[in-house]
Parts: sequence; structure tokens; C-alpha cells
Amino acid sequence: MRLLLVSNSTQHGTGYLEHCESAVRQFFDGCRRIAFVPYAIADHDGYAANARKKFEEMGFSLVSVHEGDPCATAMAADGVFIGGGNTFRLLKALYDTRLIETLRARCGDGMPYMGTSAGSNVATASICTTNDMPIVYPPSFTALEFVPFQINPHYLDADPASTHMGETRETRITEYHEENRNPVVGLREGAWLHREGDSLTLEGTTGARLFRRGQDAEELETGADLSGLL
Amino acid sequence: MRLLLVSNSTQHGTGYLEHCESAVRQFFDGCRRIAFVPYAIADHDGYAANARKKFEEMGFSLVSVHEGDPCATAMAADGVFIGGGNTFRLLKALYDTRLIETLRARCGDGMPYMGTSAGSNVATASICTTNDMPIVYPPSFTALEFVPFQINPHYLDADPASTHMGETRETRITEYHEENRNPVVGLREGAWLHREGDSLTLEGTTGARLFRRGQDAEELETGADLSGLL
Repeated sequence: MRLLLVSNSTQHGTGYLEHCESAVRQFFDGCRRIAFVPYAIADHDGYAANARKKFEEMGFSLVSVHEGDPCATAMAADGVFIGGGNTFRLLKALYDTRLIETLRARCGDGMPYMGTSAGSNVATASICTTNDMPIVYPPSFTALEFVPFQINPHYLDADPASTHMGETRETRITEYHEENRNPVVGLREGAWLHREGDSLTLEGTTGARLFRRGQDAEELETGADLSGLL
Repeated sequence: MRLLLVSNSTQHGTGYLEHCESAVRQFFDGCRRIAFVPYAIADHDGYAANARKKFEEMGFSLVSVHEGDPCATAMAADGVFIGGGNTFRLLKALYDTRLIETLRARCGDGMPYMGTSAGSNVATASICTTNDMPIVYPPSFTALEFVPFQINPHYLDADPASTHMGETRETRITEYHEENRNPVVGLREGAWLHREGDSLTLEGTTGARLFRRGQDAEELETGADLSGLL
């Protein structure tokens, strides 16, 4: 299995996918046609146009699954990219279109899968550590299960100067562990996970936090070998 | 119907329920026994002890629904208070215990209902505008439906200096309106809604934002008459 699971599609002050562009080029090297899944955003056409522009710049052709039969498009592609937006809307669409089964089959067979933000959430065991509002009700929170752990994208360290009384991100993840057992990787903006078969590595520039039930959080630095999480 | 729907139980720098204490005392005036619903937090005993201490200080007796038969406890009480924590965990417990039906019946008959944070979310049409992580899967996002609109508690205005690329609260509510029609009241910390029959008023000190599908957001000041939302 080959995965590139990115925290955020756009880093502050740079263009769309610019901060991870060399990783994306390398990851999809040898692929001609990338299937794009736009369902996390309401405007599928606009979202696909934006993604196509960037992927064509990088030398790939991109076809959005909403432009034809979603599963047939995914079957005919060399790689898949699921972009960010609302995770609940995205997961519900993966079930509604049956892409959930098609992607499990294709990516289980080695088709490279890239996700950003919500697209990284749905690659994991479940969407139970998304930051998004539950704007629609999916038939399950179980996701593609390409890895047996959780990602929290856009991970934010607590601000000690804050007077806001809403839960910090770490408190929310602690609540997740009151009810569930999977480890959670809090991926800061600027970081991503790269899986090649049995190997999993933390890449990017900003690091991550690893949360395990009943244990203190652990700081992970760029380059960390996380294969033990697989 | 009588409702007191508070954004946050604790205001920065003050004690538990201190910022809304005089409103709570007035709201429950004439009640002897308050049923407390602790299910949003994992530690029911600790949470109930904390709430009991505050309610006894205010001159009420408090019994937590987890200490006996939840529906019988709610039936025998003069008022109900649902505290904050994780909204998904809370709503799932309301369904699992069948409190959802009991509270609809009792509060429909005029029993006063107070909620803070998640307890305010579940009083509305649905939990679709909670800020919480979906740590458990409830059988539905439909909530108690005591009002035909949504609340977003702990509402946060966007910080123009932020470099974080995760969605702002307003963007998340816009996503809600891409999929749903109910108005959303973004209740800042320090604000609450007070319903007496057909009258609904914004109280507290910090105001709120009203979001309607397809319209610009509207600033609401303390004292605003929101009866038109009922």
C-alpha cells in the first residue's frame, strides 16, 4: 500500500499544494491519470478545476470522479487524490457512491492514494478525530481503514495565553481515548505521513504529536519512523 | 416551554456557573429538585459532585440521572440541567437511556430545561453545529428539538492575525448551510438564550451572531428579542 496523508493543502503564505509539491511529484511519479474526489466541498466543478490546474502544472492528468461514473473513474486511474473540506460530507459521499469499496480494492492493490485534511481523515480507521462540523449524517464513522490509527489534521498546540474556554485539541483527543483505543497522530500544518508498504515515515517540516490511550503525548520529529503504528 | 441555553459553564477567570448565576437562580425559582444529566463527561460521579455543590449553594437539591433510573429521575424532578462535555457522547446517551423521549415529554409540559455548551446543543433541532469531535456514533444527529434552530456554543469570531489554515467558525457554519436550512445562533462565551413560552431573548454580556442560509451574518446585542426564530 502507498499513501501520502497530508495535514493541509495550503500552508499560510504559499499556493495550493506548494509546501508539499516535491513530495507529491515524487509520490505520483510514473502515474499518468489521477482520479480526484471533490466531495468534501460543495462546488465540485470549481474544486476539480482548481486541483486540475495544479496537477497539470506538475505533469499529471486529472479526472474528477464527479464528471462521470465515480467508481469507473477510480478503476481506470493510476492514482487517487482526495481533497479537504468537510469530512462528514466526504465520507457520506464515499458511501453513497460506493467509492468506499472501490478505493479499498484499488488501493489495497497498490494504487497510490493521496489525501489532504479531510482526505487524510477518511484514509484512517475512522473519522472520529476530524475537526469538522457534523453537517450531514454518514451511515457510519468507519472510514477507508488504510491505516489502523487516527489522524487529527491541522493539529494545533494549545495557546497558553488563550482565555477561550472551549476544549483544546489535546483535550478533544483525550475525550476520543475515553471511548476508543486507536493511537492518534496530531499532524501539524506543514507535516504529512508517507507510507510505502510496511514503512511509515513522518515528513514535512513541522512535526507531529502522538497520542496513545493512557500515556503522555509524544513529540514526533520530521523523519520519524512510525512503521510500528501499522 | 421554558429554556435557559448557555454557551459555556465557566467564563475565563470566574468559577463554575458564576457568570450566569443570577439568571440560573431566577430561572429555577420555585423548583426544589433538579435532575442533572452528566453524560457528556466520562466521569459521571465527579461531574455530578461538582454540579451538586454549585446547585446546593444556590439553594436547590440536585440528583444525577446516572445515580438511579434515568427516566424515573427526570420524571420526578422539578427542573433539568444538562452540562457540557462531548456532544456526541451526550446525545448517544440520551438515546440509549431513552431520556430523549422523557425530556421531550416533561419539557414539552413546561419543566424548565437548562443546558450549557453540549447541553445547549442537544436542546436544539440537531447537533449538526457542535464544535466537538465525533468520538462515538449516535443513532441520529436529531436532538431534543426544543427550538427549530441551531446553536453554536463557544462561538469564536475569526482572528484576522491567524496563520492557521483550518476553517474559521464562520466557514464551518457556512458549510452547514450548504447542506441545511435552519438558522444558527453563534453564542459567544458569556451569552445565553432564555425562552419563556413564545418569547426568546438573548441575555448575558457578549452578544451573538445570527447566520441564515444565503444571507449575511447579523450581529445580535444583549437583550435582542429573538422570538421570531421560534
